[in-house]
Amino acid sequence: MAFFDLPLSELWKYLPEREEPEDFDSFWKETLEESKKYPLNPIFEKVDFGLELVDTYDVTFSGYKGQRIKGWLIAPKNRSGKLPGIVEYIGYGGGRSFAYDFLLWANMGFIHLIMDTRGQGSSWSPGNTPDYDDEPFDPQYSGFMTRGILHPKKYYYRRVFTDAVRAVETLMAFPDVDRERIGITGGSQGGGITIAVAGLAPYVGIDIKIAMPDVPFLCHYRRAVEITDGYPYQEIVQYLKTHRDHVDKVFKTLSYFDGVNFAVRAKAKALFSVALMDNICPPSTVFAAYNYYGGEKEIKVYPFNGHEGGGTFHTYEKMKFAKRNLKD
Amino acid sequence: MAFFDLPLSELWKYLPEREEPEDFDSFWKETLEESKKYPLNPIFEKVDFGLELVDTYDVTFSGYKGQRIKGWLIAPKNRSGKLPGIVEYIGYGGGRSFAYDFLLWANMGFIHLIMDTRGQGSSWSPGNTPDYDDEPFDPQYSGFMTRGILHPKKYYYRRVFTDAVRAVETLMAFPDVDRERIGITGGSQGGGITIAVAGLAPYVGIDIKIAMPDVPFLCHYRRAVEITDGYPYQEIVQYLKTHRDHVDKVFKTLSYFDGVNFAVRAKAKALFSVALMDNICPPSTVFAAYNYYGGEKEIKVYPFNGHEGGGTFHTYEKMKFAKRNLKD
Amino acid sequence: MAFFDLPLSELWKYLPEREEPEDFDSFWKETLEESKKYPLNPIFEKVDFGLELVDTYDVTFSGYKGQRIKGWLIAPKNRSGKLPGIVEYIGYGGGRSFAYDFLLWANMGFIHLIMDTRGQGSSWSPGNTPDYDDEPFDPQYSGFMTRGILHPKKYYYRRVFTDAVRAVETLMAFPDVDRERIGITGGSQGGGITIAVAGLAPYVGIDIKIAMPDVPFLCHYRRAVEITDGYPYQEIVQYLKTHRDHVDKVFKTLSYFDGVNFAVRAKAKALFSVALMDNICPPSTVFAAYNYYGGEKEIKVYPFNGHEGGGTFHTYEKMKFAKRNLKD
Amino acid sequence: MAFFDLPLSELWKYLPEREEPEDFDSFWKETLEESKKYPLNPIFEKVDFGLELVDTYDVTFSGYKGQRIKGWLIAPKNRSGKLPGIVEYIGYGGGRSFAYDFLLWANMGFIHLIMDTRGQGSSWSPGNTPDYDDEPFDPQYSGFMTRGILHPKKYYYRRVFTDAVRAVETLMAFPDVDRERIGITGGSQGGGITIAVAGLAPYVGIDIKIAMPDVPFLCHYRRAVEITDGYPYQEIVQYLKTHRDHVDKVFKTLSYFDGVNFAVRAKAKALFSVALMDNICPPSTVFAAYNYYGGEKEIKVYPFNGHEGGGTFHTYEKMKFAKRNLKD
Amino acid sequence: MAFFDLPLSELWKYLPEREEPEDFDSFWKETLEESKKYPLNPIFEKVDFGLELVDTYDVTFSGYKGQRIKGWLIAPKNRSGKLPGIVEYIGYGGGRSFAYDFLLWANMGFIHLIMDTRGQGSSWSPGNTPDYDDEPFDPQYSGFMTRGILHPKKYYYRRVFTDAVRAVETLMAFPDVDRERIGITGGSQGGGITIAVAGLAPYVGIDIKIAMPDVPFLCHYRRAVEITDGYPYQEIVQYLKTHRDHVDKVFKTLSYFDGVNFAVRAKAKALFSVALMDNICPPSTVFAAYNYYGGEKEIKVYPFNGHEGGGTFHTYEKMKFAKRNLKD
Amino acid sequence: MAFFDLPLSELWKYLPEREEPEDFDSFWKETLEESKKYPLNPIFEKVDFGLELVDTYDVTFSGYKGQRIKGWLIAPKNRSGKLPGIVEYIGYGGGRSFAYDFLLWANMGFIHLIMDTRGQGSSWSPGNTPDYDDEPFDPQYSGFMTRGILHPKKYYYRRVFTDAVRAVETLMAFPDVDRERIGITGGSQGGGITIAVAGLAPYVGIDIKIAMPDVPFLCHYRRAVEITDGYPYQEIVQYLKTHRDHVDKVFKTLSYFDGVNFAVRAKAKALFSVALMDNICPPSTVFAAYNYYGGEKEIKVYPFNGHEGGGTFHTYEKMKFAKRNLKD
Repeated sequence: MAFFDLPLSELWKYLPEREEPEDFDSFWKETLEESKKYPLNPIFEKVDFGLELVDTYDVTFSGYKGQRIKGWLIAPKNRSGKLPGIVEYIGYGGGRSFAYDFLLWANMGFIHLIMDTRGQGSSWSPGNTPDYDDEPFDPQYSGFMTRGILHPKKYYYRRVFTDAVRAVETLMAFPDVDRERIGITGGSQGGGITIAVAGLAPYVGIDIKIAMPDVPFLCHYRRAVEITDGYPYQEIVQYLKTHRDHVDKVFKTLSYFDGVNFAVRAKAKALFSVALMDNICPPSTVFAAYNYYGGEKEIKVYPFNGHEGGGTFHTYEKMKFAKRNLKD
Repeated sequence: MAFFDLPLSELWKYLPEREEPEDFDSFWKETLEESKKYPLNPIFEKVDFGLELVDTYDVTFSGYKGQRIKGWLIAPKNRSGKLPGIVEYIGYGGGRSFAYDFLLWANMGFIHLIMDTRGQGSSWSPGNTPDYDDEPFDPQYSGFMTRGILHPKKYYYRRVFTDAVRAVETLMAFPDVDRERIGITGGSQGGGITIAVAGLAPYVGIDIKIAMPDVPFLCHYRRAVEITDGYPYQEIVQYLKTHRDHVDKVFKTLSYFDGVNFAVRAKAKALFSVALMDNICPPSTVFAAYNYYGGEKEIKVYPFNGHEGGGTFHTYEKMKFAKRNLKD
Repeated sequence: MAFFDLPLSELWKYLPEREEPEDFDSFWKETLEESKKYPLNPIFEKVDFGLELVDTYDVTFSGYKGQRIKGWLIAPKNRSGKLPGIVEYIGYGGGRSFAYDFLLWANMGFIHLIMDTRGQGSSWSPGNTPDYDDEPFDPQYSGFMTRGILHPKKYYYRRVFTDAVRAVETLMAFPDVDRERIGITGGSQGGGITIAVAGLAPYVGIDIKIAMPDVPFLCHYRRAVEITDGYPYQEIVQYLKTHRDHVDKVFKTLSYFDGVNFAVRAKAKALFSVALMDNICPPSTVFAAYNYYGGEKEIKVYPFNGHEGGGTFHTYEKMKFAKRNLKD
Repeated sequence: MAFFDLPLSELWKYLPEREEPEDFDSFWKETLEESKKYPLNPIFEKVDFGLELVDTYDVTFSGYKGQRIKGWLIAPKNRSGKLPGIVEYIGYGGGRSFAYDFLLWANMGFIHLIMDTRGQGSSWSPGNTPDYDDEPFDPQYSGFMTRGILHPKKYYYRRVFTDAVRAVETLMAFPDVDRERIGITGGSQGGGITIAVAGLAPYVGIDIKIAMPDVPFLCHYRRAVEITDGYPYQEIVQYLKTHRDHVDKVFKTLSYFDGVNFAVRAKAKALFSVALMDNICPPSTVFAAYNYYGGEKEIKVYPFNGHEGGGTFHTYEKMKFAKRNLKD
Repeated sequence: MAFFDLPLSELWKYLPEREEPEDFDSFWKETLEESKKYPLNPIFEKVDFGLELVDTYDVTFSGYKGQRIKGWLIAPKNRSGKLPGIVEYIGYGGGRSFAYDFLLWANMGFIHLIMDTRGQGSSWSPGNTPDYDDEPFDPQYSGFMTRGILHPKKYYYRRVFTDAVRAVETLMAFPDVDRERIGITGGSQGGGITIAVAGLAPYVGIDIKIAMPDVPFLCHYRRAVEITDGYPYQEIVQYLKTHRDHVDKVFKTLSYFDGVNFAVRAKAKALFSVALMDNICPPSTVFAAYNYYGGEKEIKVYPFNGHEGGGTFHTYEKMKFAKRNLKD
Repeated sequence: MAFFDLPLSELWKYLPEREEPEDFDSFWKETLEESKKYPLNPIFEKVDFGLELVDTYDVTFSGYKGQRIKGWLIAPKNRSGKLPGIVEYIGYGGGRSFAYDFLLWANMGFIHLIMDTRGQGSSWSPGNTPDYDDEPFDPQYSGFMTRGILHPKKYYYRRVFTDAVRAVETLMAFPDVDRERIGITGGSQGGGITIAVAGLAPYVGIDIKIAMPDVPFLCHYRRAVEITDGYPYQEIVQYLKTHRDHVDKVFKTLSYFDGVNFAVRAKAKALFSVALMDNICPPSTVFAAYNYYGGEKEIKVYPFNGHEGGGTFHTYEKMKFAKRNLKD
């Protein structure tokens, strides 16, 4: 991969005009309130995978409109006192897999919740949370990017982002978690959800201390579809290629789900990552969110990486950042 | 494309063991009866595209469990007496597009109904029929092949095949159609649906005179996924690649939807087509259905073609076959 | 496909310097006059494909230097009075196929002539018109773009464009055609020929009312070969890659066949189409022709499409445009 | 590349049924006699490229029906007595380039003639010999494989093979050449021509001592098009993909030009080469010609090579073979 | 990926003739003894990554001819008594990365050593162990497969396999490890090394209880290079493509390093995995090793997977297998 | 390939800031002096390949630190007096092959030495010179670009460039060579080495008259890795993708080996070539070296070529340039 986006010097100051619908705030307030009516009803069922240093729980909670969402919670075995917590969201197509795949944060002394992504979990890691809505699913291009894209209220990520907020509440409901020391993180789609949750948390009075989005997806769609051939952004292009009459409608819907609009509302202290050869989540789309981000922030730039981003090096950056901000 | 499947001499006698669940017949009888409870309620709304030789109608009817399905009906303008009718099903990913794209059969003196495929219509031609079920959608791989694949009752094609049977009833409900002279056709997925409808029609007492499946899809899944890398069969492989624990469940479900099992029950006179370099619908999967086909039959073999099959040459074969069997 | 050409705002005003040889007018006048010496001798032989609403004719006429060119003519069956006519040119590599593949315009009440493209008709739809010249064929790269490219008089498209002008005369020679209401159209190469004929018609006193080039090819070669890797423009690059000593000669020849130079001379009312992700016929090459176009004009822009352009949506635009301008 | 053809043990005894038209002999006798009527008229024009050890000549001679064919002749500068000669034919798409590219054989003490391939010379090395026929060129797929393929008399390789025989006569006409010690060689298409000339030479009483076809093309078309996706054989598949009605006609024509049928008539002592991972000229097609070859013969097998075959290693095999058979 | 190797029913009994040099045993005995002369000198340096449940050590030990090899050791923090140990080898191109990437086995209650692979660690995960030999490196194809391939004593994997045996000794030298309960594992190249170490351990009197090779590489080279295009086996093909004169020499060298020959000597209880669509390590090469394997054994077959094999599902199989055999 | 770099008008004046380490001169002086301590000890062993016009010698000489390097020397057979000489360096991955592959320059009346490239010669043409260093080889990405890249003193090209200077001395040591008339040349990597030797020659008092780098590699690394995906530059990107912590170190090392820094020191009269569609050695990297080049210079620009550059046309340019400057 060669460089294909703006030079780094321009990325640092890239502040494209935001496309924000007038009713953005009311749309999300209503959305979250509507789901709040359903009791969270979190269930933490212990599962024994033979791990001796951590406890693992099969998690179920009520997400969007009370629909039941799966997850895993991993906690240090002989814990005492309240521990800081971290919620993690998964990349596009993946599912929650199994608890033994997520040992890092518990080994760092955190209580860690992984949220399954509804309907996904069939492309690279398995998941088992269904997706559904009250109304039928309009025709869509393969994948999840265009499911319900003709109406903001029916768009797939409305449900996912709501689930994601409730996942934070679920972690907070776990007895040993210190509700004052909560972080959220995720890579790619998980990074996009992280930014969304950081922006939505204030609506529901949740205090998130840190947000760590890696090479985040779901930001600045307008530019993304123009600058990259990469999937999953390309799903939107493929849809518009067929539904030539729905271009405006589609971008209108997406404006309710744009990381740039969530970033501007976020308050959690943030550690971003971006890779300059990333054609899945092009650097300008990440910097658009970063530059607009409302909280204290820093970003690690990986110039010669694609969507794998900082990899194990960035893992360590996150470990240090989380320790510094949630433990020390 | 080089030859990659069995030699033609072996294809002619290829009769692989069929995987048929014991309750295949009852499954489908119940399925069709359940939907029959909903009134068909066909609506034919005339639409003026400026065509002077044909009338075009925007069609809506009740498919699976009464869900409303779209279509087009095209009929010669100054028709008199009852005319033979043809129902056409669309290839994977496509939608009903617009009526002016389907002029052939009406120009041949048939009344022609094109059925939209629920949920699709976003990959190459536009459609606008939603897909839905009573229950949430389990995680799936991108596309439609694995939607609901863990349970025969929830599998996507249960809904589609039911819609397709009802589409024939809808055509029959059009005043000028001669219900004794009905044909069905389609290419690829449309061909797979054609075989399914040919096999399902006897359950509901519909008399279909001719079936013309071109390079049909949805036949002999077991072999398909082993012999080709091509999509959409590959969607099943991709799903199983992640859900390694669901292999048996998936093939069990597919056995209710295998063209080979429909073919054995079909009675309509059939004209198949097959292409020997077709890696989307490999020749052995087509011949498996053809060789088991229960009615009078013939097949045109296109040795140097891929999934485009016989193209305009086969169109003419179909024109002659339909004329001979439905008009002369 | 991502955007790869100029931004739309710049495309609207893109007017690159034209490369026009001094003797452009005399070259084409002589070319057309030379062929005019051969009698057109149009033959319309009725062929029965079983179509009941239209008459179909196998057409033969004298094109470049009297060489016999094939085509199809489709006309409404029970026509009365003079009807408007449309000539259609085919995309690169395709042939005239069979008459039943072209039913739209006759169903709209037009008399429709499809011209076979000499020598082509072997890549996706069959044709059967030979290509030849008085002189031997110099070495060429595979395809048609570099056949005779060292000398304007021997260049392949000199023969094709001349055929195309005579095709219009052939349609006009059909008894039921209203010679005052003629349109021309085609996509890709067919669009390039459309522009050429629009520009050449005035030389021979033919009055074309409307021209509808879709995603036209054969425009602004200089930029095309620099901005896209796509075939068929790439054939020119491949030729120059080997014949490094013929760069100037090749562009000199092409300047006699550049859609930009025909556009500037055209007078017919035009409806263009262009797709912003089209790397076969890049948008700047289309806009170069459009912006220089001499007649009344409009263009439909399809931002998220490749070379498929507006597809069925644009078909409807053309139907309305032709009806408005040739029928109402 | 993995192995994709028969195992080597089977290749050694692979003798597929030959498809030979009854009039094969008379077809070629007439073809060669017809062209013999035109005086060969060889012209050797010295050209100075600054080479000090060899003389280089720009060659022109009359090939098929007297059409003028180009070539180069390279001879040791201070030669004395009659020297053995070698004619070389070029691979598909290439042209004669320039004399300084062919120094090996003259440095070995041979007089070396390179024949330009009519119409080609635009894909990787430049050529400047035109191709033409008395009759127009039927529609063809891009390239040369299907030019005139509907009629044996109009097929492109009828002209090329005739040129190739006359090239041998041209070399023999060069004063310093020993007509008793003539070899022919070439790789890929050049290898196919070598086999053809070896088979045709007896018709016109030319005595060729050695033939050295490398990874020869143009052999056993029927199998080639079924076993490989590689071009140029694929050009035939592409043609048949469109012209589905011409399958038999095409194979009939090809049977007049099949290396297998020439091989069976050849008498020159031969050194073949074949590569087991060659998907341009699959090993079974080469072995079909080799196993049927009529003269004394040997073949070098390169198991881990593709179409590059034995490369510089095989060059040395040829140098030794030619020296042993033509010089020692 | 479609199936491309033998059917599963044949794989179960696939026992190809082994190519084993006569001095295989003495070659390896001498190799291991030579390196044994150098003191192992294992160093375990504690490193603090902020992990609270495990201790992590930067490991250095003497491998082949005393050259210093890096690794990580991870152990449960508050351990007591002797714990079972597991050595893990890394896939091709990867390096030891950082200790926090390997938490599973310590969380299971094992002491876990990851060995860096000399010279690698630059393709997907970082490493920092140099590779060297006493003698210069002969020309090689890119990568490691052909480094020193002309002489068994200089071949790259002679050094790696020796390092790998010494890595087991290093783990055994860690104070808290129970030397009677040692397992080895790895995927792909790591699986190939696992089999090699299982076969070499008896030479040096090391008792390995279990071996868990996943989709192992480095087995049955002869077939591998003939059946797959996939890298890294393809490096051998590429080398032979150029060095056509070294085919026998290369296979002679490889016979000293073939997993099939190690398998036959192995005694540890084994859990293999294989994927039927794996074109990196084709199933027949894995089954060749499995079927010849000398110890008690079982294998998990993943029919619809490529080189990712059983993924998280197989991780769990290994967790249970290790627990059952080393802990319960 | 489309144009992807700066427009030609900007390339002509492209003078990017050079990254040159302060001790560049002393680094190279010491490097060359250190190797000078080892006697050159050139051996020219006559080999008979059956060539009658030239003598061919198997060459061995002492390169970097006295390590023995292979080559070929080809000279006109019946030469008299001192002849001008040319040293040629080989493209990436290739080896010296065999002497009969290099006949041009001897046929032009030059004495020609081809230097083998240590460690390479396994990708397209065979070589047999080993590579080694005093110290172990750090982990590297596949290929040669990152071998030793963490330390300028251990970097692979330090050895190659030193060999290359000594190759010139070797040619000068051949009895019949006129030491006042020496040229150097090579394409791609050979062109990069040519520029390096032109820049290094002054340090050791060697007078090179002409340098002819074709489409040179190894220039302006910083831009190369940002603008092209092509290998071998991409090897650096791949290395940095894993070793994210070594970016500065890597570019620091490369600054000692950048053609731009050698060019500025060169004095030989130069003929460059560049191709505008070359994505292996992008035009801006070539122009960076050309524009900084210190000696008299000219450059041939091939606009429609990729890395094949001017091919046979440029060969002739070089023939004339060498003749004009070294012979006339």
